Amino acid sequence: MSTAVRIHAPPASVPPATRLVTLPGPFRMRRGGILPLVHIGCERWGELAPARDNVVLLFTGLSPSAHAASSPEDPTPGWWEYMVGPGRPIDTRRWHVVCVNSLGSCFGSTGPASPDPRTGEPYRLRFPELCIEDIARSAREALRVLGIERVHTVVGASLGGMAALAYAMEFPDEVERLVAISAAARATPFAIAIRSLQREIIRSDPAWRGGDYPPGQGPRVGMRLARKLGLMSYRSAQEWLVRFGRERLPQEATREPFGPEFQIESYLEHNARKFVERFDANCYLYLSRSMDVFDAAEHGGGSVERALAKVRARRALVVGVETDFLFPLFQQEELAEGLRAAGCEVRFEALPSIQGHDAFLVDEARFAPVVARFMEAP
Amino acid sequence: MSTAVRIHAPPASVPPATRLVTLPGPFRMRRGGILPLVHIGCERWGELAPARDNVVLLFTGLSPSAHAASSPEDPTPGWWEYMVGPGRPIDTRRWHVVCVNSLGSCFGSTGPASPDPRTGEPYRLRFPELCIEDIARSAREALRVLGIERVHTVVGASLGGMAALAYAMEFPDEVERLVAISAAARATPFAIAIRSLQREIIRSDPAWRGGDYPPGQGPRVGMRLARKLGLMSYRSAQEWLVRFGRERLPQEATREPFGPEFQIESYLEHNARKFVERFDANCYLYLSRSMDVFDAAEHGGGSVERALAKVRARRALVVGVETDFLFPLFQQEELAEGLRAAGCEVRFEALPSIQGHDAFLVDEARFAPVVARFMEAP
Repeated sequence: MSTAVRIHAPPASVPPATRLVTLPGPFRMRRGGILPLVHIGCERWGELAPARDNVVLLFTGLSPSAHAASSPEDPTPGWWEYMVGPGRPIDTRRWHVVCVNSLGSCFGSTGPASPDPRTGEPYRLRFPELCIEDIARSAREALRVLGIERVHTVVGASLGGMAALAYAMEFPDEVERLVAISAAARATPFAIAIRSLQREIIRSDPAWRGGDYPPGQGPRVGMRLARKLGLMSYRSAQEWLVRFGRERLPQEATREPFGPEFQIESYLEHNARKFVERFDANCYLYLSRSMDVFDAAEHGGGSVERALAKVRARRALVVGVETDFLFPLFQQEELAEGLRAAGCEVRFEALPSIQGHDAFLVDEARFAPVVARFMEAP
Repeated sequence: MSTAVRIHAPPASVPPATRLVTLPGPFRMRRGGILPLVHIGCERWGELAPARDNVVLLFTGLSPSAHAASSPEDPTPGWWEYMVGPGRPIDTRRWHVVCVNSLGSCFGSTGPASPDPRTGEPYRLRFPELCIEDIARSAREALRVLGIERVHTVVGASLGGMAALAYAMEFPDEVERLVAISAAARATPFAIAIRSLQREIIRSDPAWRGGDYPPGQGPRVGMRLARKLGLMSYRSAQEWLVRFGRERLPQEATREPFGPEFQIESYLEHNARKFVERFDANCYLYLSRSMDVFDAAEHGGGSVERALAKVRARRALVVGVETDFLFPLFQQEELAEGLRAAGCEVRFEALPSIQGHDAFLVDEARFAPVVARFMEAP
């Protein structure tokens, strides 16, 4: 590639194969405010074709890094390991896959935990309000730096699906295909309520200190509890019934008053602790809020339908999961219908996975063939 | 009535028409521990028939007092105002209705906030572990004090439905009919997860102080947040979509960082604040845990079916709600089938209310006729 890419020595929390792409100038945020210096953390797999026409841009959910899949440089499994790689549904022998860490996150991309170059101090709450559209547009600027002007397929699930949709609406002439998984044109009040409570739990932890906690010493209790609530909204009651039932912990597990007694409580505790180790609280607050505020209708004068009519991708894959109550199925139906009305050839899949909103991460048996078929189609 | 009922000057939080019935001796708890002195807060409506055969015993959900309906002494509407009263589905011209505040609660009945007579100090965490069966049996002892030996119909919803079921299993010869609404033989792991997180949120508030907060100065932040999570599990995503959509608050509503921006957030805040004013945190922890631990199968050597076979009520009404994800419909189906197998004449109703688990409190149009028909049947 001819364009110079500034590569920074990444902080310890950035996965080893993530490269930091520096945007060429200040970045103007959708709801106001300017970031003088923006890095976007990217991982890439597969060769860029000489015509630069084989790019798959991949947006992540709220919390993952850009490490979607393993590579010789970083052999640890990525968050979508089964989906991305040679011979996988998103086949890196054919596609040049670029996964971006979202603007506002903390795995290489500029966010509230990054130093404000004007002061040398972390932005914390002085970071400007973050929108899904900012995540989409900063990824597009990063692609430009990498010499990529068009995307064959933009792919995303959950928050990433919203970002993929924003990308297809904002840059209609630069996207040929769209894959939106467990996504929505806008959040339901129930999803807003859950995320609002997660944020309030974090903000109520005295260690949050109005956002001014010392780096690495954030609101660990609040983050742990917020993550548990997140896990409840990401999976499904059906799955837990099958997996855990009413299984008890060994009697000696805890004797603290009202401490865990059931396996399900221990599962949540284990998963929540892992999360606290790796995610910055202020980044979490910004990304979480961006999902509440996103509303595709803003791109269509108040109408989701008119907004989706802006998309000019020729083909789209829209996938939803029957047990997802955070992004319920009617929201993916709305996307599929709106895109169809816009003249897009839409494949819509309602999968009966029992893993709820997170099914795309774990239900390989159902998701792999659906995505593979779409990616292989001419 | 001939039996002397000791009536205590109730603390301010006890509704004016609630009478405190003092049990005649120490009360032995199911999982160990003895309460030397137990009061049960009761409200009553309608005349007790000379044959004492017209008693309806009403158990409450986790948080209400015994004030189920208004009366001349307390004209404020009760928590089930539309259901109980003259000409109402549970018609107090015919029935002598007794509603009990659960053992472990804080509206007249003995609980963790009550003084331990051995020390004069509130029990707090020295209160013994509470089971649903303790709530059922203490109510039965209170009825005995009131001169009542048999119950025509035992009625309960949610926690109260579990208590009604426990009553019918433990005292099979003293119950003629059973009404179990939005109840279950045992909690799902999803319901346990939600309640476990609510308790952890409360326990994580530094003001909880390991349970040793001064009376009236408990973990208000934790209680407020736990209540919000409760509200999410009590209602349904569908209802909020219709009621709130993505309506915004007036711009001036808040400028605190990450403060409420949507109507749904304001609704939760308003309801949660009301709750904090009236409920003791330790009582909440005990009652919440009792719902997790309840398992009808304990009454049937590990089998729910064999446990339900103990019930000898002649007739039962089992009601569930399609949008209830805390006590999902399959749990009421399990109850109906088990009771039917036990020879009970069961009427099972699956109601399409959109208000979720709390529908019985608000969906008068659907619940009133169902309960009325059952109560009127000969």
